[in-house]
Amino acid sequence: MKARVTVTLKTGVLDPQGKAIEGALRSLGIEGVASVRQGKVFDIELEGTADRAKAEELLKQAADKLLANTVVENYSVQVLG
Amino acid sequence: MKARVTVTLKTGVLDPQGKAIEGALRSLGIEGVASVRQGKVFDIELEGTADRAKAEELLKQAADKLLANTVVENYSVQVLG
Repeated sequence: MKARVTVTLKTGVLDPQGKAIEGALRSLGIEGVASVRQGKVFDIELEGTADRAKAEELLKQAADKLLANTVVENYSVQVLG
Repeated sequence: MKARVTVTLKTGVLDPQGKAIEGALRSLGIEGVASVRQGKVFDIELEGTADRAKAEELLKQAADKLLANTVVENYSVQVLG
């Protein structure tokens, strides 16, 4: 079973990396970008779980414990089947 | 207009970071994870473009020129409207 966990910064948390990318895009001549915020994505392959709900539970645990810093980051879990 | 560019490693390209996460999950007692591959996600706000096709074109340019290294990475562009 495949799944994707997407981790993004919470609103209001500064993102200097995103700001740098904004500047770089502008200097490359790509106009029309108002803001950029960078996040992380984890493509996870699960084994031995046919149960979607169980898989989601497992991934939420993984995100809470390791993949995301829930003080400054949000995460979303998608089970792709 | 909001958009998301997701950058992932091409199949066959080694991902030591993903391997480390796999190991860490196992040692945290989270079982059932067969593999992890890490990628990047860019949440981009566009201004002055109401045209979906034009926005996609712009984002593809941005990904080709800056956001992704197309030698080892794939990217996908989603315009969220």
